[in-house]
Amino acid sequence: MSSSKKVLELFYDVVSPYSWLGFEVLCRYRNVWNIDLKLRPAFLGGVMQGSGNKPPGVIPNKFMYMTKDLGRLAKYFSVPLCAPSDPFEAMFEKGSLAAMRFVTAVAEKAESDRDAKVERVSRELWMRIWSNDQDITQPASLSEAGQKAGLSANEIEELLKLAKSQPIKDKLKSTTQKALEYGAFGFPLIVCHVDGQPEPFFGSDRFELLAHCIGQQYSLHFQSFKNVMFCVDLSSYHLTHTDTYSSH
Amino acid sequence: MSSSKKVLELFYDVVSPYSWLGFEVLCRYRNVWNIDLKLRPAFLGGVMQGSGNKPPGVIPNKFMYMTKDLGRLAKYFSVPLCAPSDPFEAMFEKGSLAAMRFVTAVAEKAESDRDAKVERVSRELWMRIWSNDQDITQPASLSEAGQKAGLSANEIEELLKLAKSQPIKDKLKSTTQKALEYGAFGFPLIVCHVDGQPEPFFGSDRFELLAHCIGQQYSLHFQSFKNVMFCVDLSSYHLTHTDTYSSH
Repeated sequence: MSSSKKVLELFYDVVSPYSWLGFEVLCRYRNVWNIDLKLRPAFLGGVMQGSGNKPPGVIPNKFMYMTKDLGRLAKYFSVPLCAPSDPFEAMFEKGSLAAMRFVTAVAEKAESDRDAKVERVSRELWMRIWSNDQDITQPASLSEAGQKAGLSANEIEELLKLAKSQPIKDKLKSTTQKALEYGAFGFPLIVCHVDGQPEPFFGSDRFELLAHCIGQQYSLHFQSFKNVMFCVDLSSYHLTHTDTYSSH
Repeated sequence: MSSSKKVLELFYDVVSPYSWLGFEVLCRYRNVWNIDLKLRPAFLGGVMQGSGNKPPGVIPNKFMYMTKDLGRLAKYFSVPLCAPSDPFEAMFEKGSLAAMRFVTAVAEKAESDRDAKVERVSRELWMRIWSNDQDITQPASLSEAGQKAGLSANEIEELLKLAKSQPIKDKLKSTTQKALEYGAFGFPLIVCHVDGQPEPFFGSDRFELLAHCIGQQYSLHFQSFKNVMFCVDLSSYHLTHTDTYSSH
């Protein structure tokens, strides 16, 4: 059954608010599109360095626009995104290395329910930095996110230790390197595997193109600017009306 | 009648392919949305310098992705966009200063049919650089674009002379400065005027948000990946089906 599913890899970092939007949209569409969504926790700092890109925050006009844009998109996608009080400190000074090593440990360690655990822990970390203006660098912060994600105290203790180990550091590096090989210059990077070919999509504003690429349709019209946390596919209606209109 | 129309300003440069996409979408939606679309020919080079931004072309991964992204978007928006054989030369070495001064002259000079002329001349210049791999820097090139846009030989001769005058140079500068004041760090920049407030949208991938901002709906579903050069608004269908689904 799963062999017919198209594989989509989502390379992300919880320091990136646009990644959060892409993450939530793909989690919602996972069943609508019947895709095999692979979460790939990676390190944005490494992608910026490896590609030679500069974060948008260094251009004042870009930074101001980003704040406005994120506010609009949060409402549109119904994601409770809210900028931290000091975005520069949160994103560039404190960063996400410890957090992404922790998520990588979750992804590597979990024997059962791996995907669900990675999803829940990632979401809790985004909630901390990009909704509640909380730290994501200290062990206590990661521990709290793990608890909220439903991990046991023992599990969390082991994961915190594991997150500092060389194999986990190496794994995070290799995932980041993989993203660079797919052409990343920022996150999110979504790679669709279609007929053995990787098709990369950057950002959280190409879902129509991505859907077309995997032979699906995308519509957020039911969801836009409403406080609903689900999404409905309109393909059948669109096709019907397209047929009706095409003779005009 | 026109007083009830919302004013949208489109700041653009024909050197920018994303500007072309935004331009065509707004030209198509002009009547659907009943907006007063103001075309604001400006100079991208000045916006990049004024905002401290760097063109995407300088990051290799970004440049490669842009090529792929533009190919997909061209198909999606049904715009015959095709990268010039040497995009670096076309965009950064040759540039668009002469072309945008020419468009500014058209905008300033035209006594009748101003908007239609600016629209047609701009489109012909985009066709040259971003579809037919042709020059847009030489007087003969501008003249040919003018002819295709329906301007008379006399008119073109006068415009070419005017394009080199100080008032036109100053006008292009002041429009570019205005874009910077609205927060531009690239083009297209679309500024919606709503309740006396300017609401800037950067790029050609926020039309759903822009539509919401002006109290309209946006849908490209009829048009996506089909060879049609028109667009139909689906608002009524969406509303109907939203009502149907909201009880589920």
